[in-house]
Amino acid sequence: MKKITVLGGGTGTFIVLSGLKEYPFELSAIITMMDSGGSTGRLRDQLGVLPPGDLRQSLIALSEASLLWRKLFLYRFEAGDFIGHNFGNIFLSALEKVSKDYKEVIKTASFILKTKGKVIPVTFDKTNLVAKYANGKILKGESMIDANIEKENKIQEAYLEPKANANPEALKTIEKSDYIVIGPGDLYTSLIPVLLVDGIKEALQKTKAKIIFVVNLMTKLGQTHNYKISDHLQDLEKYLGRSPNFLLINKGKIPENIIEWYQDHEEEVVIDDLNNSFFGKVIKENLISSTVFDKVDSDRLSRSVLRHSSKKLARIINKIIS
Amino acid sequence: MKKITVLGGGTGTFIVLSGLKEYPFELSAIITMMDSGGSTGRLRDQLGVLPPGDLRQSLIALSEASLLWRKLFLYRFEAGDFIGHNFGNIFLSALEKVSKDYKEVIKTASFILKTKGKVIPVTFDKTNLVAKYANGKILKGESMIDANIEKENKIQEAYLEPKANANPEALKTIEKSDYIVIGPGDLYTSLIPVLLVDGIKEALQKTKAKIIFVVNLMTKLGQTHNYKISDHLQDLEKYLGRSPNFLLINKGKIPENIIEWYQDHEEEVVIDDLNNSFFGKVIKENLISSTVFDKVDSDRLSRSVLRHSSKKLARIINKIIS
Repeated sequence: MKKITVLGGGTGTFIVLSGLKEYPFELSAIITMMDSGGSTGRLRDQLGVLPPGDLRQSLIALSEASLLWRKLFLYRFEAGDFIGHNFGNIFLSALEKVSKDYKEVIKTASFILKTKGKVIPVTFDKTNLVAKYANGKILKGESMIDANIEKENKIQEAYLEPKANANPEALKTIEKSDYIVIGPGDLYTSLIPVLLVDGIKEALQKTKAKIIFVVNLMTKLGQTHNYKISDHLQDLEKYLGRSPNFLLINKGKIPENIIEWYQDHEEEVVIDDLNNSFFGKVIKENLISSTVFDKVDSDRLSRSVLRHSSKKLARIINKIIS
Repeated sequence: MKKITVLGGGTGTFIVLSGLKEYPFELSAIITMMDSGGSTGRLRDQLGVLPPGDLRQSLIALSEASLLWRKLFLYRFEAGDFIGHNFGNIFLSALEKVSKDYKEVIKTASFILKTKGKVIPVTFDKTNLVAKYANGKILKGESMIDANIEKENKIQEAYLEPKANANPEALKTIEKSDYIVIGPGDLYTSLIPVLLVDGIKEALQKTKAKIIFVVNLMTKLGQTHNYKISDHLQDLEKYLGRSPNFLLINKGKIPENIIEWYQDHEEEVVIDDLNNSFFGKVIKENLISSTVFDKVDSDRLSRSVLRHSSKKLARIINKIIS
């Protein structure tokens, strides 16, 4: 059975994992531990726990438990002391408080959610993402970087503070993988944070695994503003220390009204400017989900109007691998 | 297998259930749904859920799940948005929000906690306990009644507002029981509330089950101040509509320093004033737990310095039944 490992966090990783779960792979997900916003940020600040949000999403993506359990873990309190908190986040935080270590937390959560495959926190160290911008400005904390919308201020350098050591299981998993999938997802707040953990870049350079980079559909204001495909690739390679072997690019037509919605938010379709500058294999397919998601919903899974299709992504990744 | 049903809520019921769980009985617990204080009260007020606190305690008492699960369900947040809330209460509340009805909540919680026996909410109706005192004062809400410490103001009448209908499963369970255990526990805030639900009193009068009343060790200020055994019995019988068949009375010596601690809080050892006024069987045994509990701990299970012993209670109840 082929060993497929997905790197990242957030909605993009949720989508990839949900699709790949249906195939007979040995699946792992190495998840970012740098979220500092929303429910997760409050739990970190108030209880001193590790950030549960990205883990929760990946655990649910891989869950084969009943619908009720998955609904419970996604449930977001709408009133009272818990307003804005996900039950899944509260569960992981309380579990951390009564467990002997975080490995036990993941083991217990994976058991009750019946996850197919392994969810692996990239680090057990408490750390924060820091971004240094072209004009010298420094922002600390993933949520601060996420909220930044300055158009003309490119991220020059991302790093962790304090430095964090990789979870040994993450390193071993990278070493033994056959394929590693990175993206889709926010380049600087979901994907690169994983690569910044000490040991990960080296492991990714050493592994025999082939890397598949799924390029985002749209730019993100304040993070990848005006980025074309080559810009995404260049920034990723900087932190990855190597080139991906495959690029997955959408060639499906994005509906005009969706493009307009994004334009109102100063975000654009990622332009394909690849000539012969990329030496790996470029795969262009229709990767778009036909479902249009509601931006209004408070849940993370619905924060993008336009999404990759789980099924289409998984089908193409399966084709690459087989 | 003998069918034993415990009526009540709170610490006393937790103790009885924890002990009886070790014997080969068909156990049920019919639980009060009138708590309105603390974590439970906030959840009721803010989320409109049914009160989870007493259910949580009984579910844990009957749980045969791993220690980690039981610790998780008892875990009380000590900081942040969740301060003072039990994880178990949050769990039941979120589960109620995603379940189709409260039966599904109990079924799911019982499943993951591996409860031995059934936990049955006495009603699914939202209601509050009301106490009318001798001087005409009326207090609404279990927590208000619990907090009242007026010495010379006896509770004249307790009722529910609005009226609540019994959970049909509670009625069926009472009908089919061989023995019903009431107490120990706060007379007006843990035991009598169950009897006030429409249908329960009638079911208790009709059933062939024998009723065992475990008399409290100490009086409770503002609720059973100066109460002797006959007073406890008289008030219980008023709401029960019949006499219990067995009285379980402690004859073990309560350490002097514990008596002093209670005296400082204006609570006294319940005096045995039974002559021949009770027509059932009176059993006097040492029922005291040798462990002294810490009043300081924020958890409910530790709110009494002196407690009945789970093991001694269960052993004697087993002797009655066999």
